[in-house]
Amino acid sequence: MKKDITIVGAGLVGSLLSVYLSKRGYSISLFERRSDMRKEKLSAGRSINLALSDRGLLALEKVGLAYSIKQICIPMHGRCIHNTDGTIAFQPYGKEGQYINSVSRGELNKRLMSLAEENGANIYFNEKCTAIDWDNRKVVFENEETKNTKIQKADLIFGADGAFSAARLQHQLHHHKFDYQQYYIDCGYKELTIPPTANGDFALEPNALHIWPRKYYMLIALPNLDKTFTCTLFFPFENLSDDEQRLSFKKINTEEKIKKFFHANFPDAIPLMPDYVNEFLTNPTSSLVTVKCFPWIRDDYFALIGDAAHALVPFYGQGMNCGFEDCRILDELIEKYATDWSKVFSEYQTMRKPDADAIADLAIYNFTEMRDKTADPKFLLQKKIENRFAQLHPDKWLPLYSLVTFSPEIRYSDAMKKGEQQEKIMSEIMKMPGIEKKWESEEIEKLMLRKID
Amino acid sequence: MKKDITIVGAGLVGSLLSVYLSKRGYSISLFERRSDMRKEKLSAGRSINLALSDRGLLALEKVGLAYSIKQICIPMHGRCIHNTDGTIAFQPYGKEGQYINSVSRGELNKRLMSLAEENGANIYFNEKCTAIDWDNRKVVFENEETKNTKIQKADLIFGADGAFSAARLQHQLHHHKFDYQQYYIDCGYKELTIPPTANGDFALEPNALHIWPRKYYMLIALPNLDKTFTCTLFFPFENLSDDEQRLSFKKINTEEKIKKFFHANFPDAIPLMPDYVNEFLTNPTSSLVTVKCFPWIRDDYFALIGDAAHALVPFYGQGMNCGFEDCRILDELIEKYATDWSKVFSEYQTMRKPDADAIADLAIYNFTEMRDKTADPKFLLQKKIENRFAQLHPDKWLPLYSLVTFSPEIRYSDAMKKGEQQEKIMSEIMKMPGIEKKWESEEIEKLMLRKID
Repeated sequence: MKKDITIVGAGLVGSLLSVYLSKRGYSISLFERRSDMRKEKLSAGRSINLALSDRGLLALEKVGLAYSIKQICIPMHGRCIHNTDGTIAFQPYGKEGQYINSVSRGELNKRLMSLAEENGANIYFNEKCTAIDWDNRKVVFENEETKNTKIQKADLIFGADGAFSAARLQHQLHHHKFDYQQYYIDCGYKELTIPPTANGDFALEPNALHIWPRKYYMLIALPNLDKTFTCTLFFPFENLSDDEQRLSFKKINTEEKIKKFFHANFPDAIPLMPDYVNEFLTNPTSSLVTVKCFPWIRDDYFALIGDAAHALVPFYGQGMNCGFEDCRILDELIEKYATDWSKVFSEYQTMRKPDADAIADLAIYNFTEMRDKTADPKFLLQKKIENRFAQLHPDKWLPLYSLVTFSPEIRYSDAMKKGEQQEKIMSEIMKMPGIEKKWESEEIEKLMLRKID
Repeated sequence: MKKDITIVGAGLVGSLLSVYLSKRGYSISLFERRSDMRKEKLSAGRSINLALSDRGLLALEKVGLAYSIKQICIPMHGRCIHNTDGTIAFQPYGKEGQYINSVSRGELNKRLMSLAEENGANIYFNEKCTAIDWDNRKVVFENEETKNTKIQKADLIFGADGAFSAARLQHQLHHHKFDYQQYYIDCGYKELTIPPTANGDFALEPNALHIWPRKYYMLIALPNLDKTFTCTLFFPFENLSDDEQRLSFKKINTEEKIKKFFHANFPDAIPLMPDYVNEFLTNPTSSLVTVKCFPWIRDDYFALIGDAAHALVPFYGQGMNCGFEDCRILDELIEKYATDWSKVFSEYQTMRKPDADAIADLAIYNFTEMRDKTADPKFLLQKKIENRFAQLHPDKWLPLYSLVTFSPEIRYSDAMKKGEQQEKIMSEIMKMPGIEKKWESEEIEKLMLRKID
């Protein structure tokens, strides 16, 4: 008899997970709190672009979905840095031919839901998880429209319902030793829009991720299929620093102040965003949370996956990629242990927990890099030295960004360790007198070789 | 008109808080999830002794309760260390005349509840907080016996309902930027009993806290008014170390193994605990959690206090003392700002959060000290040097334990900083060749004087 699996949440990870499990022969029911987004219009200021990269693509490929999803992606080959003086600099993400992909969260989710259904899953919408009876493996849902209660009996239960997971809350409330933490960064974000030009073209180079780095805040822009860009301003909620001059959402609260702020800091972006003042005033300001917890599982019948197990801030573009990788790794363990779910789950969490912790920390760190260092000449020189060395000795040096983004065969936790070693070497190299002049010399290359071994 | 204050939880802190607020002229309703413990028998293995020390006493004194509570306390002047070889060593906690107080949590709570009522509070029992309507300042309770729902309107709401606070959960669910963490240590605990001797006397020295330190675990014993001792074994749930020989609750699971374990490690305790095997098998094994969160307040109408705001592990004996100190500090701020609750709450959390974080970290650290270092000759020498120096220069050196335990005028966060400075100095002193021989020399004294300044 087919085993019944209930997945709480039909977001990106829940939908992909259901495809994996359908292909393993399970009968899948997905319960989604929101209504069917394939029948609705997105609310303004909540479009959200994601960067799909190699880890996510590999996970899609394993169940044959990569091709279909690539149709809605726009390649971004590097960062396009917009400096305060109006100059633009391009920083490639990796080697020639390596890129990440801008994709609309909404479009991607719609497609994955349909693919989940095509593979056999049933999706129930407006179903909010209100309780889980762990002893009897029953999940209780309340329909947000009809207010009817549904009790779903399952052989296996997955919590794939995101950073504020209701399934995780039930797990937490009924687990006598559950480690949990959620912490917010001081910055929130607000979305703005760059429409197409009068000719119907992209208003900026489409195959790049645009960044306006401004030390303690930044504006970014990612391309959409409809030739718009979704811009996101990451900006402090309020000024918590000792520097009283620092700006924040709290301070920039009138039309006049918004205009002054943009004219001073993003002058080249203003002509591209005809409606930015209105959008700034009316679009929501959202917050950014990291979630870490443990354990992720209960015996042989429950597991958290994706953001429900490990929510990340978006600055490494890895939240979705990490969640998709969870699915791939879980599937490899099903391959290994078949229906011995106790073993599957136990190894799943032992393996994935350090990787999720690593990428959570890297994502926090990368915010500093994006908003501050990408405009710092010293940092740019360091990247040049690293890239030169990586080209000369590809077997000995792969930059951290490439390890995380383009190397799904390397675990996040190992990538982080390698990154720390590299950073230690580079901080010594950067301290050398006259490094600005001799960075391409054989002396530096030999020194780095010695330090690696 | 008198303002109505609802306090969720009539535990130690909720009850004391109600006395403070009654004296300020507020009308107090306390809602307690459990039944009235004054009418019930305590369940076995859950007696729990606490160490009431100067911070807690000061907070009791400010509302005239210290005398009443001291009647149920037994002074403990130091640690009585039971070594593996059967020898016993006494380590005083502070100066002559300084001591901490063993008190039964249950007895203390009963007395505080009655004092709360005497001061005008109404206590409602079996009332479980199930929801809070923040906009309308209504707290919803469900009676655990009648299942009736009660909706309590309040001008001010306090969450004083402990480490697993239901009020905090409502706050978390409806706060868009709530930082939260809970983490467990690998050790759990189990209670055992030392009854009085055949003559009706204490079986051990009553005016001490007894410790059997065994590196990665320990047994402790605190005296009770009925001449029993409550013993607590702090022991790993399971072996998570690389050393396969390590023992744990998971491994010691039969009568034979329990006996073997106690004979090998606590031979001098066995004759004192006639029922230890049975107690070990039947008493529950409980876990130990640290909780940190922020913010603790909502505008001018809600605050968390005590364990609900900051749960600590018990190894510094400060959980209750810190909660009582919360009440005292809050009251000082009411004195300062009168009914401007927005200011009272804002300064309360700004002030108390770093102190609660500090004592939470110190409590974790002190577990290592108690179970491991109290039996380490090097550590004991260090304490001797510190104590000698503190006696010679009381204005320049107060040991960390004294700062935390006997110096309520010093904030926990400042005590921790001082402790870190002292530890740095002592680690240098302890590295000196021949320190074992010259620790009482003028050379060492002068060196320490120089390092302090």
